[in-house]
Amino acid sequence: MHKFIGALIVCTLLPTASLAGEPRQHIDEILVRFVAAFNAGDGATVAGFYAEDASLLPPGGARVDGRAAIQAFWQGAADSGVRIDDLHAVEVEARQDIAGEVGVFTLSVPGESGVTKVVGKYIVIWKRAGHTWQLYRDIWNTD
Amino acid sequence: MHKFIGALIVCTLLPTASLAGEPRQHIDEILVRFVAAFNAGDGATVAGFYAEDASLLPPGGARVDGRAAIQAFWQGAADSGVRIDDLHAVEVEARQDIAGEVGVFTLSVPGESGVTKVVGKYIVIWKRAGHTWQLYRDIWNTD
Repeated sequence: MHKFIGALIVCTLLPTASLAGEPRQHIDEILVRFVAAFNAGDGATVAGFYAEDASLLPPGGARVDGRAAIQAFWQGAADSGVRIDDLHAVEVEARQDIAGEVGVFTLSVPGESGVTKVVGKYIVIWKRAGHTWQLYRDIWNTD
Repeated sequence: MHKFIGALIVCTLLPTASLAGEPRQHIDEILVRFVAAFNAGDGATVAGFYAEDASLLPPGGARVDGRAAIQAFWQGAADSGVRIDDLHAVEVEARQDIAGEVGVFTLSVPGESGVTKVVGKYIVIWKRAGHTWQLYRDIWNTD
């Protein structure tokens, strides 16, 4: 019975500690997997990090709504030869099930005259979904 | 004594209702004043809506940190003749003292061949500061 109560306390405390207490850590881990999937040309896995009702707000184009459209967007970018050299969070402000993240990125963008390095910055609004966090609104621009 | 208790209840409830309950309304009101100040060429008032430690993440340029630099940035934009035709929130997600806002804008940008209409979108992370809300992180791009 003591063991059971002990397990119950651990099970009750752990999700709170790991989810509410360390959103930054979750987000950092997801970003590493996001970059790896993108650079492997796997748009489906990239899109899977977004909420079903997520939106992209890309520069030079209209808003992209929903995971299926987001998958097509990132698959198109990966297929065009773009690769992410670096992408990481600079700041994360989390409250309850919402987090605002400011990040920076460097891309390698192939063109007629070779590969160009493109540096930029972004804000993602994340939402907690059960045991993980998902990208909910995603906007970026280039320096 | 009853009157005193009544006043006490009103005073206790009102700040909670107006601050935590209706961040969207506060933000909408601030945006109206933001646009009016910008279009009047008043960069100091525009910058006053930002937190002292706020940052802009503008397209085509590096991050702008702090209210003084933000004032110079917006003063420069207003002085160049840019005017905001429309700017409004589309979505606001608020938790505790943080809100994430997605908005859209249309600008009139003067150039050599006349005025161009520029449409775009933005995300602002807001922070509650006492009785009001302040822009904390501000990023945008154009369609």
